[in-house]
Amino acid sequence: MDTIELPAADDLHVHVRQGERLQAVAPLVYAGGAGRCLAMPNTVPPVRTAADAVAYRKTLAAAEPRVEWLTALYLTAELTPEEIGRAADAGVVAVKCYPKGVTTNSAAGVEDLRAYGAVFEAMQARGLVLAIHGEVPAGGGPDICVLNAEERFLPELERLHAAYPRLRIVLEHVSSAAGVRVVQSLGETVAATVTPQHLLLTVDDWAGCPHHYCKPVAKLPADRNALGAVVAAGNPRFFLGSDSAPHARAQKECAHPHAGVFSSPILVPLLAERFEALGCLDRLADFSSRFGREFYGLPASGRRIVLRRDPWVVPEAYGDLVPLWAGRKLAWRLVGR
Amino acid sequence: MDTIELPAADDLHVHVRQGERLQAVAPLVYAGGAGRCLAMPNTVPPVRTAADAVAYRKTLAAAEPRVEWLTALYLTAELTPEEIGRAADAGVVAVKCYPKGVTTNSAAGVEDLRAYGAVFEAMQARGLVLAIHGEVPAGGGPDICVLNAEERFLPELERLHAAYPRLRIVLEHVSSAAGVRVVQSLGETVAATVTPQHLLLTVDDWAGCPHHYCKPVAKLPADRNALGAVVAAGNPRFFLGSDSAPHARAQKECAHPHAGVFSSPILVPLLAERFEALGCLDRLADFSSRFGREFYGLPASGRRIVLRRDPWVVPEAYGDLVPLWAGRKLAWRLVGR
Repeated sequence: MDTIELPAADDLHVHVRQGERLQAVAPLVYAGGAGRCLAMPNTVPPVRTAADAVAYRKTLAAAEPRVEWLTALYLTAELTPEEIGRAADAGVVAVKCYPKGVTTNSAAGVEDLRAYGAVFEAMQARGLVLAIHGEVPAGGGPDICVLNAEERFLPELERLHAAYPRLRIVLEHVSSAAGVRVVQSLGETVAATVTPQHLLLTVDDWAGCPHHYCKPVAKLPADRNALGAVVAAGNPRFFLGSDSAPHARAQKECAHPHAGVFSSPILVPLLAERFEALGCLDRLADFSSRFGREFYGLPASGRRIVLRRDPWVVPEAYGDLVPLWAGRKLAWRLVGR
Repeated sequence: MDTIELPAADDLHVHVRQGERLQAVAPLVYAGGAGRCLAMPNTVPPVRTAADAVAYRKTLAAAEPRVEWLTALYLTAELTPEEIGRAADAGVVAVKCYPKGVTTNSAAGVEDLRAYGAVFEAMQARGLVLAIHGEVPAGGGPDICVLNAEERFLPELERLHAAYPRLRIVLEHVSSAAGVRVVQSLGETVAATVTPQHLLLTVDDWAGCPHHYCKPVAKLPADRNALGAVVAAGNPRFFLGSDSAPHARAQKECAHPHAGVFSSPILVPLLAERFEALGCLDRLADFSSRFGREFYGLPASGRRIVLRRDPWVVPEAYGDLVPLWAGRKLAWRLVGR
């Protein structure tokens, strides 16, 4: 099989940032094979209101009109049920919840999810998805560390689902076997996004390589295996959210590297590489462009892409951005992009 | 208590390198409170023979005559029982064993310890210590990673001790609760060195900070706690070996940071800080200047140092070397150095 035609990817978790960075990144998101993206709201300041979201979508669409841009609000203490109503009317599809301080631009994040009952009720009523960065913060306990921060968050996910069983919840960038297990165990309204880096990397890859450092961190071989197994099984509640995050080389090759892996420009070829290695290339299209939109209740976008088996080498950089897989070979190439 | 007088430290594991680097680092080793050091043989080329060791010691002594320099041979396939005899005659105290490829300049390391029986017999006969970097190499198995590489090596340590019960063996830079447990469980001829970074740091400290990245990596809070507990208990088979390793800032703040933490210039004040936090400042002198030399069968050096409670801030850099604790406060200062 030397050519694969499939729908353009729905990347349900991507960081595009703002300003010049956004202008440079948005076309690279298109180039990587995405046709529709949920742009994360952790801009500076965050996307807090329906009006913010409309303005952000407009900026994104102007920068890259070939991608359908979806938006989310950033869950803060100021968010009201009324604003959820306005956001739903404006086409916002999700609310993103960051525990305070766990990753890039999460300083405005939440500290106690129990305080948001009225907002969650409104989201449940209006069909907005709660997208959660599922880690307890560092310092949340004497034995908490980056390796168990996701696992320690899972009871909170279980409580939320029990309290709001109709609220659709996405555990973003699931990174642990424990996270896979818990999402599998919960009802149809709970899903997880899966990133290419968590399918590809382990702790050994980011120990001594800041370009592979992201939050949640890639974990043990057993965790990577659990993620590979669940996507190979074609579980419809595990779908693509790349968490691609552009950080300038100078913010990565430094004393305090920022967390984030930049995969947007090579997204679908990289996924094809990994799915083929996992022996489940036939599952790629469902993972990248069906399960996610179905969970979100979105129609098929109708856009198509073509992968051809034609080995190429990933560029060392796109401007000042070093992509995942820089300088390494990929077997599949997107054609006509 | 505002002043502590104690013997100068015996740092039984330190990297001083060669050439200009050695000239710059050797005085910083003295400045940090060491009076006697075992300089690691992973130079380029390695210290392979008694003659190499004598030459290396001479260079070290010329660069910093106030420190007593001990040397070790690098275990390679070429090392013979006869060379062990010559090394013992020349005052070499140890043979360092690096599994191939686990850390900086370990490309000449060993692949199968069972091949070295005659050398180990000779070492046992002549009283040389076998100093082991106790990690299985990456890729040693499908589930091996930097977090379990030490634990997976421990059965090899147990086999070696069973085969050569009179051979003194040091598990260098023990980093895991499992390593502590196994060393405790073995006989009087097995000990471990402990570094300041493994007493201070966890995975959270090197995730996003290349200056804290070393091999073996700092592990979970439970591992750090096990190390703290065993030194606080005053176990005489756990003693100082800093594994201080000078890497230029440009080799740390880059795409592929080298493994190693540079602690030499602040060694004893930093240990005092940590031992005080652990509530065992009274154990410091035994840890830093008695247990190690007793295990090695060395006399007390007679040199003394004085710590005064006089807070100071660790320099951001020593030339192009960024030390552990850069820019942070330490309560204890070495006086008269």
